[in-house]
Amino acid sequence: MTFADQKWSPSEKKVARNAYDAALKVALDKTMADLKSKAHAAATPSEMWDVEDFLRQQRRKIDQLFDYRYSQLIEVFAGLIRQGYLDENLLVGLSEDKRQMVWKYASWNGR
Amino acid sequence: MTFADQKWSPSEKKVARNAYDAALKVALDKTMADLKSKAHAAATPSEMWDVEDFLRQQRRKIDQLFDYRYSQLIEVFAGLIRQGYLDENLLVGLSEDKRQMVWKYASWNGR
Repeated sequence: MTFADQKWSPSEKKVARNAYDAALKVALDKTMADLKSKAHAAATPSEMWDVEDFLRQQRRKIDQLFDYRYSQLIEVFAGLIRQGYLDENLLVGLSEDKRQMVWKYASWNGR
Repeated sequence: MTFADQKWSPSEKKVARNAYDAALKVALDKTMADLKSKAHAAATPSEMWDVEDFLRQQRRKIDQLFDYRYSQLIEVFAGLIRQGYLDENLLVGLSEDKRQMVWKYASWNGR
């Protein structure tokens, strides 16, 4: 069975949406805190341009990580857990096989 | 006579270098102050990404404005005066014709 074949029940979709939104908030809040800290500490032109590089990389990373298509969501959740953006407990309510797949992907790719 | 034909005496080169470096410092200091203020004030993801756009535009603008080739320097100084980065008084020591050309360019293109 591929991810694309998986069925998501209405209650699973709700759990998934909440988990996804919570992880996005964590990622954005962390980026915001890092931005403020880096901008505050910047003392040289080079450190100033580093802030631009940091923001560009974060924007790209967030764009790549967050993809709310049900066919992608297992891998997306695994990636978010690996990045520390998603608390696994927020996935309670998904079917056991989905959670095991997320866990397996999160563990595999983390090595 | 084109700019490329102009001769710069050793003492003019010294004046030009000092004026150029002072203007670059003004431009970088202003960008740094704006960065710190925008980052401090940012409250939404959109305002956070605006900081990236601001820095990218400033970096490009500064790259384009600052060009220390003697064949370009008259126009460069005119542009820096228009942008408020260069104090005209720092050009005292350049020949009268050079200063008049800078002044003419700064006035023309500013309209």
